[in-house]
Amino acid sequence: MSFNRRSFLKKAAVSTLAASGIPAIVDAAMQVDKKKKKGVPLIKGNDIILFQGDSITDAGRDRGINSPNAHSALGNGYVFLLAARLLYEFPGQNLSIYNKGISGNKVYQLSDRWQPDCLLIRPNVLSILVGVNDFWHTLTHNYTGTAATYENDLRGLLKNTKNLMPGTELIIGEPFAMTGCSAVNESWFPEFNKYRAAAKRIAIESDAIFIPYQEIFNKATELAPAHYWSHDGVHPSVAGCQLMAEAWAKAVL
Amino acid sequence: MSFNRRSFLKKAAVSTLAASGIPAIVDAAMQVDKKKKKGVPLIKGNDIILFQGDSITDAGRDRGINSPNAHSALGNGYVFLLAARLLYEFPGQNLSIYNKGISGNKVYQLSDRWQPDCLLIRPNVLSILVGVNDFWHTLTHNYTGTAATYENDLRGLLKNTKNLMPGTELIIGEPFAMTGCSAVNESWFPEFNKYRAAAKRIAIESDAIFIPYQEIFNKATELAPAHYWSHDGVHPSVAGCQLMAEAWAKAVL
Repeated sequence: MSFNRRSFLKKAAVSTLAASGIPAIVDAAMQVDKKKKKGVPLIKGNDIILFQGDSITDAGRDRGINSPNAHSALGNGYVFLLAARLLYEFPGQNLSIYNKGISGNKVYQLSDRWQPDCLLIRPNVLSILVGVNDFWHTLTHNYTGTAATYENDLRGLLKNTKNLMPGTELIIGEPFAMTGCSAVNESWFPEFNKYRAAAKRIAIESDAIFIPYQEIFNKATELAPAHYWSHDGVHPSVAGCQLMAEAWAKAVL
Repeated sequence: MSFNRRSFLKKAAVSTLAASGIPAIVDAAMQVDKKKKKGVPLIKGNDIILFQGDSITDAGRDRGINSPNAHSALGNGYVFLLAARLLYEFPGQNLSIYNKGISGNKVYQLSDRWQPDCLLIRPNVLSILVGVNDFWHTLTHNYTGTAATYENDLRGLLKNTKNLMPGTELIIGEPFAMTGCSAVNESWFPEFNKYRAAAKRIAIESDAIFIPYQEIFNKATELAPAHYWSHDGVHPSVAGCQLMAEAWAKAVL
């Protein structure tokens, strides 16, 4: 019996708090969107794995450290959780894991730093989560980009990436936002949904794995209120980070 | 089928890197030492969970933040990994998780700050990992304490804790050190083993769950060299943090 299964069964037997709802919810959210290359492991020995994005990815990382797999360079978010899991599950496989998210970034700002922060790293696996600022900053920073700007910019960035690194596996996270939290209210919708849809279209076009974070967070509110998963509706809580990591692992591993 | 089991089966089917060795090794290391109160969940709703110790626990946490469940206050180590897991697995249960480890601490330094950093927090679950500095600093800092000092100090601290908070569940981590890394060589042994044995004796005396980290790290070297799990032999790598978190979760959950 596997450790995971044993652990689950034991927990189910002894704990009145057994959180059986969570796995079912992640499963349900990912029924439609899951795409995986059947029979081919996405993570391989010697892989360079790069996480790119905004503050959700950044998560307070130490930007002065450039070496892979370094605690503080991975931040205090879903990337650290995933790096720890990958390095633990694939010992001796020489994985190199980088976090190059930068708080506040929109797609064009990723493009501006793509040479040092992606192309020079030459990842075999590129996981990108960007888009919430492309919308949010139209409300708060007089940013004039639209959903079409976001879609065109992201499509262009990833086409260029695919051309220069054709063997790189791509993982695209869906931008998400939760109402009922301090920074997000109903005025975000339906406009924000255009950004979500754009990310999904681009994932399909570019043969990427798509992580449907919005649906996953929505479903999680059946177990605890939105602010449990994200204090402001944009940035995940510690619990929200684990939710993201579980979803990513389910889609990719 | 549970998420964990499904995930395991899927991974075993598709990945040539499936790390089947790791769960077996954690299991083997914990056969003897595992102690769990049968039928009674250790983690309950509204629990206050406190992690105490030295740099391994500290892991670069932001000591200026006193609120529970805060990303940077949890550090970049095994505590963050466990907090994320607990908060994810027990949503809506109002868990409060604190990290009050401080780099360089020996037992007497925990005692010096026990009032603000433990008693005032009033944890229902106290997880403590301390001891490597009680030995290490005899080599590097002219510290004159002995294994007997460590044992007496730790026994006294925990007796006092049990008297003041009789309902608190206690988890004691075994101090560990790995030779073949930059800070640890054969000169540590067998003297260092006295500290390990003392921690285990105290765990048994105080009806605590004991986490046999030394055995777990030793076994892990069958899958990757010691420096993969700890750069210097004292502080766990990111992979080593996940190894610790898995062992803790296996013993406690």
